[in-house]
Amino acid sequence: METFYSHVEAHRDYYIKSLSDAVAIQSVSSDPSKRDETIRMMSFAADHLKRVGATEITLHPNPAGLQKQADGSTLPLPPILTALYGSDPKKRTICVYGHLDVQPANKSDGWDTDPFVLTEKDGKLYGRGSTDDKGPVLSWIHLIDGYKALGRELPVNLKFLLEGMEESGSEGLELFCQQQSKANGGFLDNVYASCISDNYFLGSTKPCITYGLRGICYFTLEVRCSCKDLHSGVYGGPVREAMVDLVHVLGTLNKADGSIAVKGILDAVRPVTEAEEKSYETIDFNPEEFKKEINAKALRFDTKAEVLKSRWRNPTLSVHGVEGAWAGVGAKTVIPARTVGKFSLRIVPDMEPAVVEKLISEHVEREWVKLNSPNEYKLESIHGAKAWLSPFDSPNYAAARTAVKKVYGTEPDLTREGGSIPFTLWLQDATESSVLLLPIGACDDSAHSTNEKFNISNMLYGIKVLATYLEEVAAV
Amino acid sequence: METFYSHVEAHRDYYIKSLSDAVAIQSVSSDPSKRDETIRMMSFAADHLKRVGATEITLHPNPAGLQKQADGSTLPLPPILTALYGSDPKKRTICVYGHLDVQPANKSDGWDTDPFVLTEKDGKLYGRGSTDDKGPVLSWIHLIDGYKALGRELPVNLKFLLEGMEESGSEGLELFCQQQSKANGGFLDNVYASCISDNYFLGSTKPCITYGLRGICYFTLEVRCSCKDLHSGVYGGPVREAMVDLVHVLGTLNKADGSIAVKGILDAVRPVTEAEEKSYETIDFNPEEFKKEINAKALRFDTKAEVLKSRWRNPTLSVHGVEGAWAGVGAKTVIPARTVGKFSLRIVPDMEPAVVEKLISEHVEREWVKLNSPNEYKLESIHGAKAWLSPFDSPNYAAARTAVKKVYGTEPDLTREGGSIPFTLWLQDATESSVLLLPIGACDDSAHSTNEKFNISNMLYGIKVLATYLEEVAAV
Repeated sequence: METFYSHVEAHRDYYIKSLSDAVAIQSVSSDPSKRDETIRMMSFAADHLKRVGATEITLHPNPAGLQKQADGSTLPLPPILTALYGSDPKKRTICVYGHLDVQPANKSDGWDTDPFVLTEKDGKLYGRGSTDDKGPVLSWIHLIDGYKALGRELPVNLKFLLEGMEESGSEGLELFCQQQSKANGGFLDNVYASCISDNYFLGSTKPCITYGLRGICYFTLEVRCSCKDLHSGVYGGPVREAMVDLVHVLGTLNKADGSIAVKGILDAVRPVTEAEEKSYETIDFNPEEFKKEINAKALRFDTKAEVLKSRWRNPTLSVHGVEGAWAGVGAKTVIPARTVGKFSLRIVPDMEPAVVEKLISEHVEREWVKLNSPNEYKLESIHGAKAWLSPFDSPNYAAARTAVKKVYGTEPDLTREGGSIPFTLWLQDATESSVLLLPIGACDDSAHSTNEKFNISNMLYGIKVLATYLEEVAAV
Repeated sequence: METFYSHVEAHRDYYIKSLSDAVAIQSVSSDPSKRDETIRMMSFAADHLKRVGATEITLHPNPAGLQKQADGSTLPLPPILTALYGSDPKKRTICVYGHLDVQPANKSDGWDTDPFVLTEKDGKLYGRGSTDDKGPVLSWIHLIDGYKALGRELPVNLKFLLEGMEESGSEGLELFCQQQSKANGGFLDNVYASCISDNYFLGSTKPCITYGLRGICYFTLEVRCSCKDLHSGVYGGPVREAMVDLVHVLGTLNKADGSIAVKGILDAVRPVTEAEEKSYETIDFNPEEFKKEINAKALRFDTKAEVLKSRWRNPTLSVHGVEGAWAGVGAKTVIPARTVGKFSLRIVPDMEPAVVEKLISEHVEREWVKLNSPNEYKLESIHGAKAWLSPFDSPNYAAARTAVKKVYGTEPDLTREGGSIPFTLWLQDATESSVLLLPIGACDDSAHSTNEKFNISNMLYGIKVLATYLEEVAAV
């Protein structure tokens, strides 16, 4: 593989240029005004796959149909992109997944540079989507490029499955996976194993392989008190204010210590076994560094094991914000007519989204009744996805461990993650085979945050690791 | 006065054109990007005063100096405009106040028309600032125009005092009033009485005269948990979330019934006398209409007296919103690094802003300690202004009552208001004479809200009432 590794090192500038083109496309899937860009991003990926020689490149209309907007209008969803690279029946077939949409980003959020202009600084590439997930997706394509340039054959067949709605609940993808499943003899039939590179190292330098993810249940809680925003001088007093009701209820979701206050919510959490307790000991993770990186005064837990458990295997409830209330700079004396609180839980085995929804709904109703408010509330579950946990003693995981060890010269940590990729579970069910998360970005890449970046070194090592993984998984 | 009244009726179109020019200037004082427009608006008014023959027109540099911005830069403040009309020592001198800045407005807030393009529809003039307070300010100028056209002399001398920061706490004006006070022999010396037209009828048609206002104490509560926004999957659990702390504390400010929960806050509220209790009986106010206008399911109080007390003479606490958290449409899984809650109290006699600040600060500290959070909070008092209550048996009030009766043919209600014009008190102190609020707009004008409007009939009646008031106050 040394020749391939040298080839990768030599093509650094080309990879940066190519990522720069991808980042420039503002494929923010949650922003209706940028839907065209998100759709264009899917064609951008299709063009790249065509260029390297992929076949059967298909932009599938999203099976979820049109997306309904709040104002009643509809928007097209981005297509789902599939492609083959190689179809040698003697080779194993590996399914590769990635997404090309990104989180919202505005310079005014606090970015040091334009989020949609990839900017190199001190060996880092700053830009929205650089690490989540445009960089990793391009790495697969660069890898094929490299093999072709060196006149070598890939050791496996690849099936690409790329989407443009991951940051918005992967709309339509669950149905697509069911339609294309092994059981239905679809695109996902005959897959030996799958590999997803859409998460991060646990630390900033040591690589890891990930076998578990938390699920998510996202809720909106809307309270209305009037048909229009009101002047607090003229209406404050007689009017029962929606925002006052809303913060009351949001304030009851967590206990004073920051843990979840919703009755019954912890009942389904799988107990910690002795083996699990022991497994945290060897993980390379420093809670002090984790704390320093985000400049927190203190974390909710002190020990490595407790911090990791709170990220990986225990549920949490975050309040993200309020839509409709005054969010600008300065003092506005408004009584907002309609306020929508946004909160979500990260859920873990064996919590079921339907049960979580029921418990949250009961909690909100219980707290609402106490308010005796003339207003009405509307609680909505925006999306719910189960946690995912994979057995990590399969050949797929063994191949990845060997690949990482060969490239990095170090044994990767076996980790879980606190984030959610609902698709992982859908893919596992549809292919009826092992799914592996093989991150190539670092923990401090600031995915979803301001100043998202992808280290050039991670990019280069990443391409090498993915290629080596394909060699290993062909042989195990 | 009949000739003057006919003159007013005949100049309807000219008044609309002139208001249209004023509304087109986007003088949003809270928006730093529109500061130039706000300054330009002051010159617009100066030009109109010059045109009608006012003298000693002066654009005073704001005594507050430059305005500090959040990013450390500074912005000029709009000047304070003074002018004289007439200086006959045999006539009384009336001080007239108004403001030319407006609240923020965007079509996307829900306006049916462009807020900065005055639009006539069904006898109503829609536009930001139409009723608050550009329409009333122009009415004083139109009145002079009318007298001049008819070859008549004003029965009083006028002193104009116009500002451009009313919607942003009247920055600099308190100091200006002190500098120009009677005690200092300044511009506000030798004022027989003052008249402010910057509030609204209690209902949509019956005129009123206002002798009391609530004060305001506006607070921001900032909580930070990190140096950057965080992904709730990666950081949810170990991190003590700022937004969770914030909604907890905001949720404790009001009791479950919507009343203020802050200990000691009601102690200074002046008790209701028997005479006051009786005075509500004759006020023309219908709680049902009030409720219907805003489409509320129910108000916090049922009877006319209780609803009016809750607007006029009892304090209230409104939560306006949160800066820094996710306020957009859709689901974002962010843990906001910095969240700033905005809330304010409308205060009443005999509450003192300094005491309110102390009680709020103690309350927040008490609730914060319960959280045992590693985060830090910063509570700031943005502005504090006392309530205002004027004796209404003075000649100034008698003149206004007679004027309204002559023009409308009906006795005006004597009312208080729930909003705050801190300047009222500053002017009363600086002139050492009576200050009167003489509204000409209707209660449903939607000041500070979407679709703000000024009825053409109110505009015409308003000019007549203000002129008749000057006749009466010259003679009482």
